Amino acid sequence: MPRVRPGDDLAELVAAALRQLGLQLQLGDVLVVAHKVVSKAEGRLVDLREVRPSPQAQELARRSGKDPRLCELILQESRAILRVRPGLIVAEHRLGFVCANAGIDRSNVAGAEPVVALLPEDPDASARRLRYGLYCKTGVAPAVVVCDSHGRPFRRGAVGVSIGVAGLFPLLSESGREDLYGYVLQHTEEAVADELASAATLLMGQSAEGVPAVLVRGLLEVRDAVRAWGHPEAAAGALLRPPEEDLFR
Amino acid sequence: MPRVRPGDDLAELVAAALRQLGLQLQLGDVLVVAHKVVSKAEGRLVDLREVRPSPQAQELARRSGKDPRLCELILQESRAILRVRPGLIVAEHRLGFVCANAGIDRSNVAGAEPVVALLPEDPDASARRLRYGLYCKTGVAPAVVVCDSHGRPFRRGAVGVSIGVAGLFPLLSESGREDLYGYVLQHTEEAVADELASAATLLMGQSAEGVPAVLVRGLLEVRDAVRAWGHPEAAAGALLRPPEEDLFR
Repeated sequence: MPRVRPGDDLAELVAAALRQLGLQLQLGDVLVVAHKVVSKAEGRLVDLREVRPSPQAQELARRSGKDPRLCELILQESRAILRVRPGLIVAEHRLGFVCANAGIDRSNVAGAEPVVALLPEDPDASARRLRYGLYCKTGVAPAVVVCDSHGRPFRRGAVGVSIGVAGLFPLLSESGREDLYGYVLQHTEEAVADELASAATLLMGQSAEGVPAVLVRGLLEVRDAVRAWGHPEAAAGALLRPPEEDLFR
Repeated sequence: MPRVRPGDDLAELVAAALRQLGLQLQLGDVLVVAHKVVSKAEGRLVDLREVRPSPQAQELARRSGKDPRLCELILQESRAILRVRPGLIVAEHRLGFVCANAGIDRSNVAGAEPVVALLPEDPDASARRLRYGLYCKTGVAPAVVVCDSHGRPFRRGAVGVSIGVAGLFPLLSESGREDLYGYVLQHTEEAVADELASAATLLMGQSAEGVPAVLVRGLLEVRDAVRAWGHPEAAAGALLRPPEEDLFR
């Protein structure tokens, strides 16, 4: 895919890339797309030179050692600042994701150095738009996962997670199913959208690689793809654990 | 693969399954294997009828609503109990993993109902043994990832993670690399072994599916496979964040 610029039609870019690869979308396909290209296409870029840091941002900059203008954007994008130490700000993004810098990222943003990319305004809506755009252009609506890379408590290293979903249930419930020996499994849910994001991130590499989208074929069954059509729980919000249920806040 | 029993030679079972599929191992292949079959082959099964719960286990059972004998095993397998609420015990396993029930699992264990599977004694050693066994039988040593499914703070649903690794660096460092536009990326590490575990878990399904191993081909470059050979950081322990570095304990 070419470099994405503000105002680009992402569905058209993906459709053109698929044509170039000789690939036709099929029902049950999952398209995982890096949030960075979604943010860029949606114009979610901010030039730090135009940001005026508030006193709270100055204080956050003092505690973290980060640019006060970046801190101002982190505060604007967050519901809460959860942890701060030199070099690290863990925030609860206004959409509920817990991640470093409220998901604001500097790398791979075109233009002068101090331009940063915010997360898409509503990544589930971005996923739905891309899905609908691909449907209009190809006649097939793939499931879409918008992915980011998040660090985690307890474990080192970031992994791909889904921040926007359309046409796919992000949680697969296993409760009530029988295991190999006929026992009913204890209640357990698998975060398949996050696992898809992790699998795709292996192929994207980190942002330097320039692979902004991965097509996953053969995993999602057609009947599940159809069931998820327009379903309110086919959205990344279903992956957020309500703070009152969370034992680690 | 057939059902695995205590004392089985896992390398032989995997090699036989590969022969049956007409697959020959190649340098750079990664074999992801569910910890459950590793635990079974290593005989890490405990019949709850033979467990005597201590007073601490009785107390943990009272707080969690779980079987006191299971609680006794959780205490034996843990360094610390981090959180308890009805239906949930989050423990720090003696190897450092933070997970529900210290990784002890009831589903898919053959025999009478009250038999549970503990995690392998040393999953990195299990991964090395399986790798070496496959090398002896096939002439090629694949990287091996032993995976489990863990819940997480902040996000709903469990995802595949690696608890044992051999022949692969579980963390891929991106620091110092340039992005598409020539900026040097901020320091970031990708937990590739966990992403491999998540990708494989999508194909294994949860334990009910009976797919205990997944072969990943074409991802790991041969020079990386060779570099990781016998390297002390090619182990799952590298993924554990030391508690003093963790902002969420």
